[in-house]
Amino acid sequence: MFSTVISPRFYETDAFGHINNIVVAGWFETGREAIFRVFTPELDPQKLPLILARIEVDFVAQIYYGSEVEIRTGIEKFGRTSFIVVQEAWQKGELVARGRAVQVYFNHDTQQSEPLPAAYRDVLEQHLVGAADS
Amino acid sequence: MFSTVISPRFYETDAFGHINNIVVAGWFETGREAIFRVFTPELDPQKLPLILARIEVDFVAQIYYGSEVEIRTGIEKFGRTSFIVVQEAWQKGELVARGRAVQVYFNHDTQQSEPLPAAYRDVLEQHLVGAADS
Amino acid sequence: MFSTVISPRFYETDAFGHINNIVVAGWFETGREAIFRVFTPELDPQKLPLILARIEVDFVAQIYYGSEVEIRTGIEKFGRTSFIVVQEAWQKGELVARGRAVQVYFNHDTQQSEPLPAAYRDVLEQHLVGAADS
Amino acid sequence: MFSTVISPRFYETDAFGHINNIVVAGWFETGREAIFRVFTPELDPQKLPLILARIEVDFVAQIYYGSEVEIRTGIEKFGRTSFIVVQEAWQKGELVARGRAVQVYFNHDTQQSEPLPAAYRDVLEQHLVGAADS
Repeated sequence: MFSTVISPRFYETDAFGHINNIVVAGWFETGREAIFRVFTPELDPQKLPLILARIEVDFVAQIYYGSEVEIRTGIEKFGRTSFIVVQEAWQKGELVARGRAVQVYFNHDTQQSEPLPAAYRDVLEQHLVGAADS
Repeated sequence: MFSTVISPRFYETDAFGHINNIVVAGWFETGREAIFRVFTPELDPQKLPLILARIEVDFVAQIYYGSEVEIRTGIEKFGRTSFIVVQEAWQKGELVARGRAVQVYFNHDTQQSEPLPAAYRDVLEQHLVGAADS
Repeated sequence: MFSTVISPRFYETDAFGHINNIVVAGWFETGREAIFRVFTPELDPQKLPLILARIEVDFVAQIYYGSEVEIRTGIEKFGRTSFIVVQEAWQKGELVARGRAVQVYFNHDTQQSEPLPAAYRDVLEQHLVGAADS
Repeated sequence: MFSTVISPRFYETDAFGHINNIVVAGWFETGREAIFRVFTPELDPQKLPLILARIEVDFVAQIYYGSEVEIRTGIEKFGRTSFIVVQEAWQKGELVARGRAVQVYFNHDTQQSEPLPAAYRDVLEQHLVGAADS
């Protein structure tokens, strides 16, 4: 799985004293940047042929300000024009959140989804999560 | 269903030129404030006995800066200590996103979930969504 | 002055239990949308010939979740290619923050600032703040 | 000066295709965490005796998604109960933003500012910026 380390920011806390839930959805987007780089190594938004169709986040434990969070990102499975990303957030050795994202291969010019080219699929397959029970 | 009107903000757009997906997860939190008020009419975070266990968002259509978005929020069903919220986002007469959120009745002092008191359930039941197929 | 009413969102609070300071800078951007509409009534980002050169925010009092905030926005003075916006945030009858923003009239094609056309200036002058001591 | 490296996130871009200005104000807050750690090494918000009285940000150049930004943070000068922080954002060897923040030493229990204790001042003085012409 790809690994991205996040330092929680003060403005990401909320009045409950922990990291706000919605922020975690944002961190998972950030974790998916490792996947975006498969399509555009320089992360040029104009060259990113993906849109997001769905997200799911399970909030497993409270996430605290003051210690780093690791976002782990892998591929769960492939559809014809889309693929499912699985993600986990870990803090201090504990799983604190899990997520899924459905990314669609998308032609921004025609505004249509298209079959995921084999060249990209081959790269992404290297990041398939074995027992995708997360 | 509860209705909350959101004016998209410029900083909520992203480089694709539309509203960023993660922002929609935030708007759905805002839509759930109508439910938070059932528990704390003055929206005092210290008196809000809910935590969020899970969210799902389906991104149905692009959301544009420059016109209002209506967030509709209702209850799908009740568990013993939790309930499922269903939400929709509408812009210019079009359904642009759908969401679900699992809210857990939670005692912040004991850090434990507790059965949802009948008094709250009675109020929330008035907002049950009939054919909860969204 | 233009007036924009903001309902603070739960995710805009921070661990101090109030609205995070940085959020206020965002709300002031939202307050300036009334000015953006002078240049593009439909708020089309592609037609917005302004960039932001500078912001200042004075945090006067704590801002609470649970009650509305009014953002007041006016023009302090004009330069050749820019103008200064003054802003205030009010909650429950109390001034809670003050801000200034320097907006530059900007040609996104040439990536150069340009003199502010008189037609725009005439409209904006109607929103000049008399005693600009804020 | 303290140095903090930020990887811009996709959701921090806006419809102009670059990083949104308000986000930079947030990054500067993140840069100030090095200063927060002087007061609470574990970054416990309950032990952070500072409030923010004012921020200024000058937007010098466009900031792009896809390459890191270094936030440099130092102390400009001390008042009796407050101190001024100066900050810079650098991307690809170019200064892209400058900021100032006025932090006040604050007793959250009494809700009053207090003189900055010498012990803290001694540590912060090591980060005084010599020619504070930023």
